[in-house]
Amino acid sequence: MSAEFKIVWTEPLTSFCQKVFEKMGVPSHDAFITSEVLVMADLRGIESHGVARLRRYYTGLKNGVMVPRPEMKVVRETPITALLDGGAALGQVAGHKGMQMAIEKALKSGIGIVSVGNSNHYGIAGYYSLMALKHDLIGISLTNSDVYVVPTFGREVLLGTNPISVTIPALKERPYVLDMSTAVATLGKLEVYNRMGKKLPLGWATDEKGQSCDDPGRVLSNIRSKAGGGILPLGGEGEEFGGHKGYGLDLLVDILSGVLSGSGNTNLLYPKTPDGKPLPSLVGHFFAALRVDFFRPLEEFKRDMDDLIRRLKNSAKAEGQERIYIHGEKEFELEEKYRREGIPLYFKVYEDLKAIADGVGVPFSL
Amino acid sequence: MSAEFKIVWTEPLTSFCQKVFEKMGVPSHDAFITSEVLVMADLRGIESHGVARLRRYYTGLKNGVMVPRPEMKVVRETPITALLDGGAALGQVAGHKGMQMAIEKALKSGIGIVSVGNSNHYGIAGYYSLMALKHDLIGISLTNSDVYVVPTFGREVLLGTNPISVTIPALKERPYVLDMSTAVATLGKLEVYNRMGKKLPLGWATDEKGQSCDDPGRVLSNIRSKAGGGILPLGGEGEEFGGHKGYGLDLLVDILSGVLSGSGNTNLLYPKTPDGKPLPSLVGHFFAALRVDFFRPLEEFKRDMDDLIRRLKNSAKAEGQERIYIHGEKEFELEEKYRREGIPLYFKVYEDLKAIADGVGVPFSL
Repeated sequence: MSAEFKIVWTEPLTSFCQKVFEKMGVPSHDAFITSEVLVMADLRGIESHGVARLRRYYTGLKNGVMVPRPEMKVVRETPITALLDGGAALGQVAGHKGMQMAIEKALKSGIGIVSVGNSNHYGIAGYYSLMALKHDLIGISLTNSDVYVVPTFGREVLLGTNPISVTIPALKERPYVLDMSTAVATLGKLEVYNRMGKKLPLGWATDEKGQSCDDPGRVLSNIRSKAGGGILPLGGEGEEFGGHKGYGLDLLVDILSGVLSGSGNTNLLYPKTPDGKPLPSLVGHFFAALRVDFFRPLEEFKRDMDDLIRRLKNSAKAEGQERIYIHGEKEFELEEKYRREGIPLYFKVYEDLKAIADGVGVPFSL
Repeated sequence: MSAEFKIVWTEPLTSFCQKVFEKMGVPSHDAFITSEVLVMADLRGIESHGVARLRRYYTGLKNGVMVPRPEMKVVRETPITALLDGGAALGQVAGHKGMQMAIEKALKSGIGIVSVGNSNHYGIAGYYSLMALKHDLIGISLTNSDVYVVPTFGREVLLGTNPISVTIPALKERPYVLDMSTAVATLGKLEVYNRMGKKLPLGWATDEKGQSCDDPGRVLSNIRSKAGGGILPLGGEGEEFGGHKGYGLDLLVDILSGVLSGSGNTNLLYPKTPDGKPLPSLVGHFFAALRVDFFRPLEEFKRDMDDLIRRLKNSAKAEGQERIYIHGEKEFELEEKYRREGIPLYFKVYEDLKAIADGVGVPFSL
């Protein structure tokens, strides 16, 4: 491990974050869940959504965008559906409650669909769909997010990298865990290219005129200032490689998260006061859980999942390739490794955690 | 319109197809539905799934792969779910019944999810999700299909171009109608490039070694003989442009269509006897319908859909572009045009319809 990193351990890292949230007024259990979501992102190698974002939540709680003791309200409810007003809670707190409700409904009635509005950034989508997996349910988790993505043929950022996560249980094989943004690349990746002084692959992003652009610094600065251009949807520029499909999926996630919940969507997300102060984010989430045994016996289904997974993994590889992956596999392996060997945090992130600890008055001994 | 085409009209074309199916032993109403699905594909510009495929169904009915008077069985049922055994019906017949059941369940109980197994090719996915739209429901239609697609890092065709269709109602604007294959390009497009002697864009397909390949003839022949290589998932080759995401969506559709129904999946689809005779296809479908008003008032939702659609469509265009589309818009416009001006059928397709008419003994006067 290069000196660029500091090794930290799962339990103390989670517990440190929990203490920071508690100091900010978040009840103990909510503070734990929020921290668990952040650390799970690091464990699964999605460090852009890990503890590196602690400051974002710390700031959000400080400036009132996120509410530490929210009044979450169930606005509408049936045995199989609910609409939850998140009360501007931490997205993880509203998200956990929403998915928990979907799971309980599915366990009792076969299906649970819960729409959550008036929430905030909820971290990795996969955390919530993985909750369903513990009960052998199919799990779905969607959210809209900060607008970084341009629609096909457009040049204004009007869509988030709006992720889709779906989990499906298997028997002896690892489960299928899709957790993907609907953009061709994430903002985090553009930032990595920028730091390394590398050019972007053409097809990732556009410039202020809406033309393909390989300069990550220019794209990032344009996104921040909304000067035009941004990240392209999955499938890239135009329609030749299916960019309109990625745009369609991205928009779908925005509709199911933002419009179904009656919360924010596209450029109505992350509103600000006229003098530039941030208001509650109006992020929406969509959660669903589904019982397999309403269709066929669970054991049979899981055995067939194993069979399907093995046929894919054991099939012939492209020249130069050694392995075919099932979705989630890389992340499970990384999680096991990091739990065993510790999580490598960038020193910059580590130092920032320390600064937060000082600011908030929590002992720091990671 | 060039001389390559023959203009035909919606009603007589549908009625002609219906008569062919009736002659093959399909009951009148089922024959009508199957014909409507085919003609709707032509009307919406997806001519690869239109009446050009009549011969495929004609042959399927003749050789027993498709059953004209199937015994469809509801294997399991609750007020919100069902598993339907299609009895090797025409995919359109099993699909229409499955979606109809999902719609009825949703209208009564809020949600309907119906899994269909032991079916056949059902035509365009969008036909079924559009059925939900007539009732102001959110509609979802998925199916697995003939394996033409290689998984990321693999070189065997193990996945279909497995489409995703989702429809969402709007108020005054056209509804959102996603109807996309999860591959970067369809087999039909490769065939067009082949006919025109054009090279494929790199990132669409791979050769027998699993390397990027721009020769459509070679790719098509490799797919047919399963020599290795095939179409790439949405996002293209490897992971740089998100090919693993397209692969994940493609696999998800296969799981929800094939594994959930306990029917075929990946290379278990389209089985043959040891001496090469085709057996029932074992295609699976997944249908869902969802009532918006279980979450929020329908009118409010639809008004917000209009607002979202307008913000996207009215946003600044990329240089050189004049229009931002919402999904389904192009297809609705084409349908209106073709209903008004007639459907342009390739002469080759027209001649084939005539040959089928002669073979089956149905008058031909299109």
